Amino acid sequence: MKRLFYLLVFLGQFTEGYSQDSVMVRRIYDQALLNGQAYENLRQLCKDIGPRLSGSAQAQMAIDWSYQKMRSYQFDKVQKQAITVPHWERGTTESAWYQTSNGTLHKVHLLALGGSIGTNGLLQAEIIEFKTLEALQSAKKEIIENKIVFLNQPMDAAQIQTFKAYGACYAIRGNGAVEAAKLGAKAVVIRSLGLPQDLHPHTGSMHYESNVQKIPAAALSTAEANDLSIELQKGKVNFFLEMDCRDFPDAPSYNVMAEIRGSSHPNQIITIGGHLDSWDTGEGAHDDGAGVIHCLEALRILKELGYQPKHTIRVVFFMNEENGNQGGQQYAQWVKSLGEEQIAALESDRGGFAPRGFGLDGPDTYLALLQSFEPLLKHYDLHIFEKGYGGVDIGPLKNSYPGIPLFGFVPDSQRYFDFHHAPSDVFENVNKRELELGAAAVASFAYLLDLNL
Amino acid sequence: MKRLFYLLVFLGQFTEGYSQDSVMVRRIYDQALLNGQAYENLRQLCKDIGPRLSGSAQAQMAIDWSYQKMRSYQFDKVQKQAITVPHWERGTTESAWYQTSNGTLHKVHLLALGGSIGTNGLLQAEIIEFKTLEALQSAKKEIIENKIVFLNQPMDAAQIQTFKAYGACYAIRGNGAVEAAKLGAKAVVIRSLGLPQDLHPHTGSMHYESNVQKIPAAALSTAEANDLSIELQKGKVNFFLEMDCRDFPDAPSYNVMAEIRGSSHPNQIITIGGHLDSWDTGEGAHDDGAGVIHCLEALRILKELGYQPKHTIRVVFFMNEENGNQGGQQYAQWVKSLGEEQIAALESDRGGFAPRGFGLDGPDTYLALLQSFEPLLKHYDLHIFEKGYGGVDIGPLKNSYPGIPLFGFVPDSQRYFDFHHAPSDVFENVNKRELELGAAAVASFAYLLDLNL
Repeated sequence: MKRLFYLLVFLGQFTEGYSQDSVMVRRIYDQALLNGQAYENLRQLCKDIGPRLSGSAQAQMAIDWSYQKMRSYQFDKVQKQAITVPHWERGTTESAWYQTSNGTLHKVHLLALGGSIGTNGLLQAEIIEFKTLEALQSAKKEIIENKIVFLNQPMDAAQIQTFKAYGACYAIRGNGAVEAAKLGAKAVVIRSLGLPQDLHPHTGSMHYESNVQKIPAAALSTAEANDLSIELQKGKVNFFLEMDCRDFPDAPSYNVMAEIRGSSHPNQIITIGGHLDSWDTGEGAHDDGAGVIHCLEALRILKELGYQPKHTIRVVFFMNEENGNQGGQQYAQWVKSLGEEQIAALESDRGGFAPRGFGLDGPDTYLALLQSFEPLLKHYDLHIFEKGYGGVDIGPLKNSYPGIPLFGFVPDSQRYFDFHHAPSDVFENVNKRELELGAAAVASFAYLLDLNL
Repeated sequence: MKRLFYLLVFLGQFTEGYSQDSVMVRRIYDQALLNGQAYENLRQLCKDIGPRLSGSAQAQMAIDWSYQKMRSYQFDKVQKQAITVPHWERGTTESAWYQTSNGTLHKVHLLALGGSIGTNGLLQAEIIEFKTLEALQSAKKEIIENKIVFLNQPMDAAQIQTFKAYGACYAIRGNGAVEAAKLGAKAVVIRSLGLPQDLHPHTGSMHYESNVQKIPAAALSTAEANDLSIELQKGKVNFFLEMDCRDFPDAPSYNVMAEIRGSSHPNQIITIGGHLDSWDTGEGAHDDGAGVIHCLEALRILKELGYQPKHTIRVVFFMNEENGNQGGQQYAQWVKSLGEEQIAALESDRGGFAPRGFGLDGPDTYLALLQSFEPLLKHYDLHIFEKGYGGVDIGPLKNSYPGIPLFGFVPDSQRYFDFHHAPSDVFENVNKRELELGAAAVASFAYLLDLNL
């Protein structure tokens, strides 16, 4: 009998605990959907400030706005971490066209890749196409020398997870300039990393190597990459490129953060964040305005509901994810140097689309914890609870805190590469409800992490 | 040893079968995503034809287009079923404004509800607000007589499944005119059934009763419903309404269908379909252009891949779902009268958004079948395999074939009520990849049904 009694008490507690969780998650969703501030905050970030590339005046405006916004929510501690970031500017001239063998000129939509050198006036050369970086690498120097290399590798539309398709093409953007320069090319033009076939070019980071000639690098819209490829099958094409983008000395900048202090373990920190910087085209609405707003709104909701976390929950707006990840790296070093115990981190950097779930980047031992959230969260259309990727900004925490579990928020990925790094990444392309559901999912996850760690 | 041998043979067959299914599903997705015709077909339906209300010239154009398109795909049997449908027209005058007690005039965005009578010139009266149909029903006749009733019930944004929020408000549109007329109102104006607060009015079906006075019924945009409600808190408001919509005699029309004949059970039919008609505003892109295109593309892909179904798989473009469901009702009667054995049906009528899964409307015994598809389809981000709703068009098959399992395709619902029945339901608001993934999901489901029934 006694055993049965304890069993009933145990089951009762279990059920009660579960039921409290359900109620709290429901309250979080009600806040996000009925009294949410996410959409208006994203509007301010996108429309009152706009794009926010590291080192720009707008990035500083975004830092000031974030700091004031966090203060207005009366979080326990609002602070800025001083960091140093690269400073690259697109300049004012950016123009390209090509001429086919019959003499016709075609003006094209193109964006310099972030970090590219300028052309120092008009650069003109025959353009030669490769479908992959490997094809370029195995080509002979004499057919490439003094030409412009065109890397025309389409993202694989058959991939269901669009990030996999992106990952498979990433090298043409990241390494194209170095590989083309090794063979004597004057510039590299890549097919934009985007899934739709349209006229929006997509920028993004690239790199140079110290012992390889720096050459200009730019991305052509996908529709025009198709057109150019067809022209190249007919005959020689001359490509004309003028860009006055350039590097400036590194600039001072900040990560911005705020927290709700833990009631029982204040020095144990759960970091949730995204990146405040964006590329200088569009408004950084999905990348990563949505992510920082998800996390800000999550903390606001937990405070609004009077939740007293056991551990400190801190929201961090990282600077410089796009072209250097100085924010993420310097945060991980800084919190370690302060003696903080970071126990988990979550990043939202995949856009403001309808939530699907969460991925774990960390020891397998945390998989059971992650999966234990599924029964509660599946009622909210969340179904991904598996190993995955955390995020660029929180990644360096692994070096400072070996074994720390990192989690990535996973929204639906189908439309992400319509907008990523393109002029179309604007506020109007973020859906209010989808953004709010993302904030609620992040808030619920932070709550469950705090409760169960 | 022998037992082990049989076990291994059994496991081998099981694995082989499973693996063939995987390959086929992958081939279906490749077709949809790499060589798909769904998006271009939807463009033709939306842009070359446009809205297609039952009885309109455009509905007939859509029937002709569908028939020709199905013929062009060389399906086994392309046919039209003659049916009779209601014929209502919006007319050319549709205008409304209100005047507050301080004399200010506010022009508003409004649409007559489908089936409404016109106002026979300018109708003007004081407008009185109710938040629910129940509040109206319990009001006294003397405060409503000769006024315009304003039913201002917002859809509940806290509902995660937006169709539930829609269902909870449906009565103000369907029954508002009858209930208001019973109490002597001159007209009824409802808050549009849409989640965003914007300036797009949403039309939709309503009904009259033979022993109750017919009064005009219209839907106001949600943003202006909010404004009007605020004005009504300040004082009396006069509302002005002019609409010359009207009914015409019933018109001849058609369901359009095509099939791939079953190799072993040709008289056993799996029907997959959506509805070809749409409201007369917007382009019927999500509702239900996406649905008919999903099913057409599904059959095209199965044929393209050379799949020989065991049972006949038939795609049906139903006419008149929006205001009468004559297509669905007459199809169910017709196939029964022909002696066909309908063994299952699937409908897609929830828009062209990222797929989530399938719902079963039918005997519980089919739930295990549905859930047996999950291991194969979860790799394609499909996670809903549960009891649910089939669809309006296939619903009447239950009367002709008691016990038939009906399945509803479930895409993500978050953006559906941004566009539903509104001028914004246009091709540009359908995402190409999301549409293609829907077609692939429907094709895979039809394939698995055929294989396992």
